[in-house]
Amino acid sequence: MQNLTTDRPTFVTHLECGKTGTHYAADQLHGLSEVGSPLIVRYDLQGIAKAVSKDELQSRPADLWRYREFLPVRRTSNIVSLGEIMTPLIELASLQAGQGRLIVKDEGRLPTGSFKARGLCMAVSMAKELGVTKLAMPTNGNAGAAMAAYASRAGMETFIFCPDDTPEINVREIAAQGAKVWRVNGLINDCGKLVGEGKEIHKWFDCSTLKEPYRIEGKKTMGLELADQFDWDLPDVIFYPTGGGTGLIGMWKAFQELKAIGWVKGRLPRMVAVQATGCAPIVKAYDNQQQHAELWPNAHTVAAGIRVPAAIGDFLILDAVRESDGFATAVTDEAILSARDEASRKEGMLMCPEGAATLAAYQQELESGRVSADETCVLFNCATGLKYPLPAMDERIDLSEPVDFASF
Amino acid sequence: MQNLTTDRPTFVTHLECGKTGTHYAADQLHGLSEVGSPLIVRYDLQGIAKAVSKDELQSRPADLWRYREFLPVRRTSNIVSLGEIMTPLIELASLQAGQGRLIVKDEGRLPTGSFKARGLCMAVSMAKELGVTKLAMPTNGNAGAAMAAYASRAGMETFIFCPDDTPEINVREIAAQGAKVWRVNGLINDCGKLVGEGKEIHKWFDCSTLKEPYRIEGKKTMGLELADQFDWDLPDVIFYPTGGGTGLIGMWKAFQELKAIGWVKGRLPRMVAVQATGCAPIVKAYDNQQQHAELWPNAHTVAAGIRVPAAIGDFLILDAVRESDGFATAVTDEAILSARDEASRKEGMLMCPEGAATLAAYQQELESGRVSADETCVLFNCATGLKYPLPAMDERIDLSEPVDFASF
Repeated sequence: MQNLTTDRPTFVTHLECGKTGTHYAADQLHGLSEVGSPLIVRYDLQGIAKAVSKDELQSRPADLWRYREFLPVRRTSNIVSLGEIMTPLIELASLQAGQGRLIVKDEGRLPTGSFKARGLCMAVSMAKELGVTKLAMPTNGNAGAAMAAYASRAGMETFIFCPDDTPEINVREIAAQGAKVWRVNGLINDCGKLVGEGKEIHKWFDCSTLKEPYRIEGKKTMGLELADQFDWDLPDVIFYPTGGGTGLIGMWKAFQELKAIGWVKGRLPRMVAVQATGCAPIVKAYDNQQQHAELWPNAHTVAAGIRVPAAIGDFLILDAVRESDGFATAVTDEAILSARDEASRKEGMLMCPEGAATLAAYQQELESGRVSADETCVLFNCATGLKYPLPAMDERIDLSEPVDFASF
Repeated sequence: MQNLTTDRPTFVTHLECGKTGTHYAADQLHGLSEVGSPLIVRYDLQGIAKAVSKDELQSRPADLWRYREFLPVRRTSNIVSLGEIMTPLIELASLQAGQGRLIVKDEGRLPTGSFKARGLCMAVSMAKELGVTKLAMPTNGNAGAAMAAYASRAGMETFIFCPDDTPEINVREIAAQGAKVWRVNGLINDCGKLVGEGKEIHKWFDCSTLKEPYRIEGKKTMGLELADQFDWDLPDVIFYPTGGGTGLIGMWKAFQELKAIGWVKGRLPRMVAVQATGCAPIVKAYDNQQQHAELWPNAHTVAAGIRVPAAIGDFLILDAVRESDGFATAVTDEAILSARDEASRKEGMLMCPEGAATLAAYQQELESGRVSADETCVLFNCATGLKYPLPAMDERIDLSEPVDFASF
């Protein structure tokens, strides 16, 4: 059987504070930096470039571990894997009128049905490498399921806190994956506070978004994979559904690393942070030219995964958006649901609401002129649409008996 | 961007009746043979062996179209694809006590979340090639969703009939993918009769299991892929959840074709047809040494995908099981649900009920001695577990406020 996790040399040199640049030692357990900022993993990039070539990469199995030299796990035996396959690119030809291409990267094919698997397989593997046995997290659903699945597989205990309006299907999934789960009367930040209290008492390791350094490295593989799939000639624009923003930050980091070793050249994709009009702190900060975002009051949207009123990495998201010459934009719930229906009905591509938000944003910005139909745009569908409730669609479902074959 | 559907030579010579061997012309529209038996697609296998090598295959993108020479679609432009990635192999180490390996092939990663995508992408592509514009099918859920998705993408109309106890989530998914759906007061065979009536009136093409010749060719890729992933040295035993049985028949056909060109040698895997005790026509026919199965009355099981009281390819399933020195076995709903819980809780692998039935069967037959813990066994998880309702799991979900950190 193919071994997806062959031993490879590793190149992590140190971690550094995302705000001050202060160095922290590799191979030690870290949370946030001393000033409360996310830690960024740094590599000997020239060492990577000497150790591996593009051709060599493309001869390896098509999964996340293909990019092993760009990743932090030192020892193969610490890799906790549930089959992180390279996610496919799916063209939406009928929704594109110009010379460009409109392509969905379907992250719903990953373990536990969402892109959260990328970050959590890395976080759990590193937790294993660093001797952690108890993990905790606040979650709107998909991240918790991914953490629980990988941690249970690694023999670790998990403690997970969900807002009490998290759909029952997600809460049960997390419990089924072996976690102890709490439903909390509050939003994701309230859940985060409970993780903070619990970890003082029970020595849990906190896997909250960007509070541990390795989820971002896992999410970085979205950028590596995209470059690989586009033959190292990246698309013009990337639309990314933005809650905590780890993926957007991670992809931008991937592009910088690839540029540093000369594997990608020229202009990088414009990064577009997509939010919902009911919870758009990054859009507001972008529009107001602020470095940080303010807490968004009374956050609400049908796309629960981007209902994040305050993101600890807000400044990193805004930096990436601005450096790339991209922008941040918000779409209504109505536009999200309409885009979801259109993609599945016309193209057989059932997106999750957060993914559908990127299609709605594409359509909105085509209209506004901030993108053109001659540009190649990639939309991130961050989870399988099958996890989310669908409308009744009475006009397409017939209950009449007997079937009246003459009526259609 | 990688082109997954490069032009390749094709090798179909003809179709033949599965019962009488009578030949039928390729490149024409066919349903069942004159004697009402499924048609089997035949290839110039030596031509394939000359045109492509194992090494050449492994240099291609890791998806179903990698095996293009073994498949019936003539023209690349007729391929209707939603990203049929190579599905991963996931080891269940903690559930294996001996020297063998216990491996799940996770088909839930395919488009529309199930292995039905393999058969239907092939059937719809061939329908496109042969000029069909209206497709119909009876379905318990997943096949209908797959057909609707591919057909909508190809611009075809679809007419789908579901038993009225099909879960609402599946019916809505089918409608969301653009189909016209009926809920029918009856089981899958009653739905099949309605397709029969409708096609006379409306000239629908009937995509029922094995009533068109190409779904089996799509399912065959499970066998090709497995051989490829095991470096052409196949596992000892394959446990397959068996309803209509297209996949079991298709895999066995793949192994015969690979053996004919010398790519696999020696003993082939023992094929185990897994059914539920509430609907086990193939098991009964196997035990009674019959060539055909009798209709199973009052079929019921939590694993709706294998609730098929009568399979048109029953004799082909029984042939494959017997030729391979395998067997047919049935498991209880209780064992299915317990196996599902064990795999997700211990290994982070959330299976669908039909997939969990194969784990239950493995455990049962380890006990009975029909398989040994020193054999490498592959279990087919035919769909994502996320589509199916999970139990309440009250013991793992805590609703108490405030959180009592001292209590655990």
